[in-house]
Amino acid sequence: MSTSTENPAGYSIEEGNAASRNAYNWSKKTFQNRSGKPGEPAQDLDGGFSNEIRFGAERLGISSDGIGTKIEVAERLNKYDTLGYDLIAMTADDLIAAGFVPTNLSNIIDVNHLDYDVVDQMMRGLHDAANFAQVAITGGEIAELGNRIGGWPGAKMNFNWCSTAIGVLHPSLAQPLSGKTAQAGHAVVALRSPSFRSNGYSLARKTLQKVFGDNWHEAPYDGSDADQHATWGEAMLAPSLIYSPGVAALLDAGLPLHGVAHITGGGVADNFSRVLKNGLGAVLDTLFAPLPAMQRLCEIGDISAETAYLYWNMGTGMLVVTEEASAAAVVASLQASGYDAQVAGRLTAESGVTLRVAAGELRYA
Amino acid sequence: MSTSTENPAGYSIEEGNAASRNAYNWSKKTFQNRSGKPGEPAQDLDGGFSNEIRFGAERLGISSDGIGTKIEVAERLNKYDTLGYDLIAMTADDLIAAGFVPTNLSNIIDVNHLDYDVVDQMMRGLHDAANFAQVAITGGEIAELGNRIGGWPGAKMNFNWCSTAIGVLHPSLAQPLSGKTAQAGHAVVALRSPSFRSNGYSLARKTLQKVFGDNWHEAPYDGSDADQHATWGEAMLAPSLIYSPGVAALLDAGLPLHGVAHITGGGVADNFSRVLKNGLGAVLDTLFAPLPAMQRLCEIGDISAETAYLYWNMGTGMLVVTEEASAAAVVASLQASGYDAQVAGRLTAESGVTLRVAAGELRYA
Repeated sequence: MSTSTENPAGYSIEEGNAASRNAYNWSKKTFQNRSGKPGEPAQDLDGGFSNEIRFGAERLGISSDGIGTKIEVAERLNKYDTLGYDLIAMTADDLIAAGFVPTNLSNIIDVNHLDYDVVDQMMRGLHDAANFAQVAITGGEIAELGNRIGGWPGAKMNFNWCSTAIGVLHPSLAQPLSGKTAQAGHAVVALRSPSFRSNGYSLARKTLQKVFGDNWHEAPYDGSDADQHATWGEAMLAPSLIYSPGVAALLDAGLPLHGVAHITGGGVADNFSRVLKNGLGAVLDTLFAPLPAMQRLCEIGDISAETAYLYWNMGTGMLVVTEEASAAAVVASLQASGYDAQVAGRLTAESGVTLRVAAGELRYA
Repeated sequence: MSTSTENPAGYSIEEGNAASRNAYNWSKKTFQNRSGKPGEPAQDLDGGFSNEIRFGAERLGISSDGIGTKIEVAERLNKYDTLGYDLIAMTADDLIAAGFVPTNLSNIIDVNHLDYDVVDQMMRGLHDAANFAQVAITGGEIAELGNRIGGWPGAKMNFNWCSTAIGVLHPSLAQPLSGKTAQAGHAVVALRSPSFRSNGYSLARKTLQKVFGDNWHEAPYDGSDADQHATWGEAMLAPSLIYSPGVAALLDAGLPLHGVAHITGGGVADNFSRVLKNGLGAVLDTLFAPLPAMQRLCEIGDISAETAYLYWNMGTGMLVVTEEASAAAVVASLQASGYDAQVAGRLTAESGVTLRVAAGELRYA
């Protein structure tokens, strides 16, 4: 499946990828600045943006990300105390996907005009999320940028929020998790996502705007879990579940992990493909059911399953590759940590990812 | 000198400080999450936001910041290849001010709509600045955020740019530099700043807008260094000088440093006050002459020296406290590293900072 410059979310995935590759190429030329010195980047990870840096015997990971347009939902609802979970999830779960246990986080809040109470709510939520993820917030900056920051016009404060997290390579790992040791027949364990996390909001908001108009956040929510959320705004603001403690517990228990994929922008197949090395593929036939809000958006917005699985996590937020003999123990450990987890499929010797979901079979080359 | 809620820059320093303190208080409650574990924050720095974190024997610093409204000047001039120096200066020079040698940087670019060529120019400049500062760019993220990002309407792309830098405590230091070992009579060495760095743009842009109107960036520049810049836009875009290599060289040479202040928002006195501990004060009577662009802005905007020294660096970007007997060696080393440096004054047993400048004597309690 290829992406095109015209797409339902209204932005170009191709141009974004090209700019990111170019930025990475400029960055890679700076790696030599730390050659043989503290902060030396690991050069031995094939593909992607290596985020391992070494200080003496310590092997650290670093990850930066923001929570993007999900913030508009918080502005619409005037509720800011759950975004901290989204912020930490983006970077902490990228780190644990490579085997780095998140330890510290530094955050930057860019605002148009400062509102003390909004920042207080944000930081309270960040504090709660940091305790959940067992990280320390060891850096922060608030910048007042006037008209450089926009958002929902009715909000007390418009803002963007991003962070950089640091983690330490789990002591049981000789190398960061990359998928290189995975084999055909290995089991894939899925962790359920109870929310949108911080991706896919362009398509979702476009759909909600079209169906319900400007104040879509006030429209009554009518997904199959309508008991959980009164309005579409509430359904769209549901916070990200942070998976890093659960995956760290798998490593603590000595369970064999051969690759972990954090399902963010690009959906299940694209993100899982990144851990498929050596020509391997996968058939995932028992993924979690689509998140009810995503299912309902497909119905009211006439969005195909192909499109939905390309932009949204569809109810699965993380995939863990383990050995068949350990799959039950991995599921049990994750459940003991409080996560919904189940075996979702197997790796195959043939390349490509096949998702067998209620809507049919989706194949990705 | 106190700040007030009404000020010439158009934003509230008091409210910003209160929000920052509150954010820090929430953050500090999370430090216990890493107690006795990798990523443990150092708890023994009094005041301010401790940014030391420990991994085994390694003692790292972390610093996050952005380049704020200086970006508008780049948008006006459609020139983006110098902002990387500003971006790295903000965090690298905060780190070296505490004795951490910057090693790695992760950056986040938030854009309204992506322009490949603008990002290419930005990353080329970041690459150049990273080579100057001897850091590796080991993380990055580009996010397309539509109307959440604003700026100069005529620009190809509006964006905000921030980064988080990591550094390692210089091996010669038993503790981060904090000013605690400074004594009355110690010398203060100033490093000249050839530019605005990334602070003070609210007041400067407000002044230029008032004097020259909407297209102030095209107004001919008439400061005393008019041979350097053709327009006010060029004068305001002049990139930050990154001091960290020069200060690291002082530490490498074993010269005794008792405190280093990075002169950012708040000006010389406010930033230098942070390294004055144990009731010490300072008289700085041979600071560098005001930056010509700042001097000229004072004239055309009828801005007092009191105000200018509160918002702008006025030509001094970093202050280094050393022993009297080492002052000449510190100056010589900095000059050998390519910086303009000179002794600017002495610490005093009496508290308060006094600046004796061409415009008169400015006293800060």
